Amino acid sequence: MISQGVRLLIIGGSDAGISAALRARELEPRSEVTVVVADGYPNFSICGLPFYLSGETPDWHSLAHRTTDEIIDQGIALRLNTFARAIDPERQVVGVVDQAGVSADLPYDRLIIGTGAEPAPPAIPGADLPGVFRLHTMDDSFALNAWMTQRQPASAVIVGAGYIGVEMADALTHRGVAVTLIQRGSGVLTTIEPELGQIVETELRRHGVSVVTNAAISAISQNDEQLAAITVGGERMAGDLILLATGVRPVTALATSAGVQLGETGAIRVNRAMETNLPDVYAAGDCVETWHSLLECPVYLPLGTTSHKQGRVAGENAVGGHRQFMGTFGTQVVKVFELAIARTGLLTAEARANGYDPLTIAVSAWDHKAYYPGAQRLDMRVTGDRVSGRLLGAQIVGHWRAEVAKRIDVFATALANRMSVDALSDLDLSYTPPLSSPWDPVQMTAQAWVSAWRAEQKK
Amino acid sequence: MISQGVRLLIIGGSDAGISAALRARELEPRSEVTVVVADGYPNFSICGLPFYLSGETPDWHSLAHRTTDEIIDQGIALRLNTFARAIDPERQVVGVVDQAGVSADLPYDRLIIGTGAEPAPPAIPGADLPGVFRLHTMDDSFALNAWMTQRQPASAVIVGAGYIGVEMADALTHRGVAVTLIQRGSGVLTTIEPELGQIVETELRRHGVSVVTNAAISAISQNDEQLAAITVGGERMAGDLILLATGVRPVTALATSAGVQLGETGAIRVNRAMETNLPDVYAAGDCVETWHSLLECPVYLPLGTTSHKQGRVAGENAVGGHRQFMGTFGTQVVKVFELAIARTGLLTAEARANGYDPLTIAVSAWDHKAYYPGAQRLDMRVTGDRVSGRLLGAQIVGHWRAEVAKRIDVFATALANRMSVDALSDLDLSYTPPLSSPWDPVQMTAQAWVSAWRAEQKK
Repeated sequence: MISQGVRLLIIGGSDAGISAALRARELEPRSEVTVVVADGYPNFSICGLPFYLSGETPDWHSLAHRTTDEIIDQGIALRLNTFARAIDPERQVVGVVDQAGVSADLPYDRLIIGTGAEPAPPAIPGADLPGVFRLHTMDDSFALNAWMTQRQPASAVIVGAGYIGVEMADALTHRGVAVTLIQRGSGVLTTIEPELGQIVETELRRHGVSVVTNAAISAISQNDEQLAAITVGGERMAGDLILLATGVRPVTALATSAGVQLGETGAIRVNRAMETNLPDVYAAGDCVETWHSLLECPVYLPLGTTSHKQGRVAGENAVGGHRQFMGTFGTQVVKVFELAIARTGLLTAEARANGYDPLTIAVSAWDHKAYYPGAQRLDMRVTGDRVSGRLLGAQIVGHWRAEVAKRIDVFATALANRMSVDALSDLDLSYTPPLSSPWDPVQMTAQAWVSAWRAEQKK
Repeated sequence: MISQGVRLLIIGGSDAGISAALRARELEPRSEVTVVVADGYPNFSICGLPFYLSGETPDWHSLAHRTTDEIIDQGIALRLNTFARAIDPERQVVGVVDQAGVSADLPYDRLIIGTGAEPAPPAIPGADLPGVFRLHTMDDSFALNAWMTQRQPASAVIVGAGYIGVEMADALTHRGVAVTLIQRGSGVLTTIEPELGQIVETELRRHGVSVVTNAAISAISQNDEQLAAITVGGERMAGDLILLATGVRPVTALATSAGVQLGETGAIRVNRAMETNLPDVYAAGDCVETWHSLLECPVYLPLGTTSHKQGRVAGENAVGGHRQFMGTFGTQVVKVFELAIARTGLLTAEARANGYDPLTIAVSAWDHKAYYPGAQRLDMRVTGDRVSGRLLGAQIVGHWRAEVAKRIDVFATALANRMSVDALSDLDLSYTPPLSSPWDPVQMTAQAWVSAWRAEQKK
């Protein structure tokens, strides 16, 4: 490490910012690391908000990956409830203002921008009415929880059936609220292919969620206490509260006003070392573009796992390291009621749009030998390239206790090593009848793919 | 495929033999495939016997990977209850005799030997007394089950605390039998390191199993109905039945009498194409040596997963294919009561004995975010090479529903791709709070290893 007593300033106290701070301190104990945190909740697990709101995680304090004291014990200075107003890259200072309105200029040798993302609610009339919520910060979740505790709503309308939408449909159902889930497109969870999305939709309905698809929202209206989401077609979905879960966008204004360039996706452009175009200024997490290892181009794909990795790389490089962010394969998993839904790599359409010639095969397999009690069906899809035989992606939907997530991780590890689909059969995977089969379902799916591929070639 | 109407004869109807037959028929529908099966139970899951005996799998028929009809439907001829007596490699015929004593000479163009393994019980007085059992075949399990059904034994002594021993300790306990488990060495399950073996021993004791270690058996005696295993030290462990689970040895007499060479391990020597030294004669499964991908030498390591892979390779090559068996990493998992115990790659001592400079790090981590209900501790060990930084192996013990097995499979997939321990941090693994952490425990362990390795280098 070259840097002796480097002053590292980090804007943002969520996954990327704290990962960067910890990594810098781990590698360079002489570094002076300060993290500017907009609220009072550094290093909180935003992915855990649905479980706080469902009641499964009763104490919000436990959502912290680390306590404030644990962070400080690592030699990291925290400036909580402090807002970064301006970056001056010439003077290498960041102007901040705290809760009391006191301003300060914080000098830096290296700066890491981790300003994250913010909800992107639809720009429609009524989106700011009382009883209309977003869910992105601890304060958002406190506001929603307080409303629910006070009003005891009987019904809710959730707009958007992405991860937050389906998780909150589960969470509010768990709390006894009747949920209507509205999706603009033709199915829920567009991160997986429609055939698997159907299984998730069935699971939602099985637990009493009313799923409405092909319904874009044009307005929100209020009638006494009841709210209603109004679709473009004029239909009204009424509920005691409305949650807008229509995705997020990167928070970039602070960066751009200092001259930091954005990429085509609208997020901050960084190289694989997490450097921006400005000297000594890095960026990481939900505010940046992410290198996609299969597409070999930057994408905007804000995920907690990626934020941790990017923050760690930025923190290492900010104190003189030379680590590269190795890229994402878009690996994701979500639990909805009894199902886990996981994917890695590309969907068929994504692969086709990016110059591959994808073949996708669907296989249904038991998670373990059916003669041992409790076997569950796994609905699996694997995508490979017809030209090269290379693995391009996989999707699995199945019972959440059926090792769905770690099976996707076997595929993700294979993707990282550019394996062919056929080579999955050679993997020495573990087997005992309560947990798998002599050919794991990962391999059964791969073998079905190779058979179908060969059959095509014989035609 | 070069072979038109090739006559493929396979000796052995367990994992390797049936896998070979299925693969040959899949790739070469014109091939004439005959499987000689010593008993009436082709393609049965021998790994499932403990669950039949525990009562968790009440119907033994369900232990079949495929029914006899399903095998025949694939165009495979089965000769059940038929014993192969001699191979004549000159004339390319195998002499067999069936249950009725009728002999036949079966001609072949290609032969696959899949004679499997047999129990290797200690050569001690009393080992053949009534009430003393082995467990390797369906008939073995029927005999034990009949004895238990008739006699309703209250107690059992199991000799050997390998996989079969610990699984049967679980199974007999499940059935209400008081179990004493005797192990020659100082701990149970020597396939994992002693620190983890201790956790398994605690789990066995917690469920009422009496575990006796450092106890070699010198004799078995009978006193009226009661049997007793007598140790070298003279101690007597009494039980209503005794199960000898002291490992297996390859069945090779048929092969050697035909001129097939064995390797140094005592199992049949094969190359990576599963060819023996005799022309047109292949061998696969528990009767052969297995290429170890990390040791880069043959070992004797009979496992169902390996048998399936080797059989598939032999079947493919026997009909003109050119597939190589890619080798084992010794990946294994076993469930004992509430625990799954998994490993892949090398233990520390094995790595050291084979020229590596191993560093092993132990980490205890939650299987998922502790704020979500039901989190379980995983006791993990990762071994890497100090010289190269390369991953050499991993072991995990944890609750059997905590994705232990598939986490080992992530390590196994990394081993197959010769990844460094450090590179595990770059893997894009899946995360949702009910199923993992932003850094999966696999990656937490890898990071702890890299930190320890770097700390050593700084000294």
